[in-house]
Amino acid sequence: MTRTLRCTVQYDGGMFAGFQRQSDQPTVQGALEEAVATVTQEAVTVQGAGRTDAGVHAVGQVIHFHSTSTLPAALLQRAVNACLPQSVVITAISDETPDFHARYSAKQREYRYVVENAPLHSPLWRQRAYHVPQPLSVEAMNTAARPLVGSHDFAAFGSPMKHSVHDATGMPGQVTYGSTMRTMLMARCWQKQRFILFGFVADAFLRHMVRMLVGTLLRIGSGRLAPGALVRLLQGDRSLSAGPAAPAHGLYLMRVTY
Amino acid sequence: MTRTLRCTVQYDGGMFAGFQRQSDQPTVQGALEEAVATVTQEAVTVQGAGRTDAGVHAVGQVIHFHSTSTLPAALLQRAVNACLPQSVVITAISDETPDFHARYSAKQREYRYVVENAPLHSPLWRQRAYHVPQPLSVEAMNTAARPLVGSHDFAAFGSPMKHSVHDATGMPGQVTYGSTMRTMLMARCWQKQRFILFGFVADAFLRHMVRMLVGTLLRIGSGRLAPGALVRLLQGDRSLSAGPAAPAHGLYLMRVTY
Repeated sequence: MTRTLRCTVQYDGGMFAGFQRQSDQPTVQGALEEAVATVTQEAVTVQGAGRTDAGVHAVGQVIHFHSTSTLPAALLQRAVNACLPQSVVITAISDETPDFHARYSAKQREYRYVVENAPLHSPLWRQRAYHVPQPLSVEAMNTAARPLVGSHDFAAFGSPMKHSVHDATGMPGQVTYGSTMRTMLMARCWQKQRFILFGFVADAFLRHMVRMLVGTLLRIGSGRLAPGALVRLLQGDRSLSAGPAAPAHGLYLMRVTY
Repeated sequence: MTRTLRCTVQYDGGMFAGFQRQSDQPTVQGALEEAVATVTQEAVTVQGAGRTDAGVHAVGQVIHFHSTSTLPAALLQRAVNACLPQSVVITAISDETPDFHARYSAKQREYRYVVENAPLHSPLWRQRAYHVPQPLSVEAMNTAARPLVGSHDFAAFGSPMKHSVHDATGMPGQVTYGSTMRTMLMARCWQKQRFILFGFVADAFLRHMVRMLVGTLLRIGSGRLAPGALVRLLQGDRSLSAGPAAPAHGLYLMRVTY
């Protein structure tokens, strides 16, 4: 009997060339598929809720895969963890109904972005936070982020994920582009010691969207961009440009809700 | 005129084969000497307050060096930081009197050890904390650590740093061993979320002493060693053995006081 297994996964994005499998580079999907296959002795495809880019970390990525293994879920988790590199771990596992899909069943994603806002960078945080030495106004950034909440066309801040048509029709090589409308449920910014944190919850995110939003907010926070610019970008004002995208190593996929 | 410059240094110990210069491996001392020499165009020897082992991190290591540079200290700091790898940074700099010596003038050192005490390790902490999945009693470890405070012979927990006689007499290859008496001013253990922290302040530490103390305390915390064993080891009871040394990547040199 084929089971559908759902796993919560944490990883250090700095050790991978992104989530999505590539033939010649270490990826999270590749590491997971290899470890699951070692344990179950079956070929396996792992689907993730979000295809994080190279360098992006995850505290609560969710994946699913199918298996005919009869191992209890908790034992499967332990066995797969024992086969994974130290840079990735399955923190929770459960059996799901066959229609569960890590990406398509997801209702909300939460991302966090960590900026180290201090004159000097900390060597111990250099792969975990983006160092910005210039003074930043948390209040200006938090106020500017507020209008992001709601349903908007986020086209200025990213592009839809490419979905290979291959998945559905068997015709490889083609890609479809979906809507750039997304519903943001939380967008805020706060200080914690020498760090400035950005938190975003949405139904889904465009590719690079969080990093583009943070990059735009950082320009506002340092006074290089007017606070109203974010709203104008949302409204499609093409005289402004968003970004640049903040670097990957400050970004964390925190949670996926179903 | 020759100046004596004192710097506070932070580094990611995982990127270095320890503090002390080696001809064929990256070391903190080597990185600092190279960066200072690049800026001052003088050959330079950097002296550190503590010779941290490979993998041991520092938040507040202190070093000194001599220079005839006329650059203001703050400018020297910025220039040297610009020449250092991202894994090490000078966080403070000041001119000192000629008799200042980072190691010999130090009055106290503070070390911290970080244990991640949770069933599963966090990939994002794997080079920053020692993962111990077994339940540990913070109370038992804190109580057991208390008698460490005071002046004791810590021979069971480490060996004196080797001081090459070369420094003083020009005869290389010989080493002298000093006393193993040390005065501990703080030794405690506390919980912070899923981490257990150990803090030690002493006038000086033997080589591997903190890691041996933590290793011994962890045996007590997991019930594998009687709480009184630490005192018996301090008293020279040779029927017991200390340690094993907890791994380097959980250890941080926090502060040196003068």
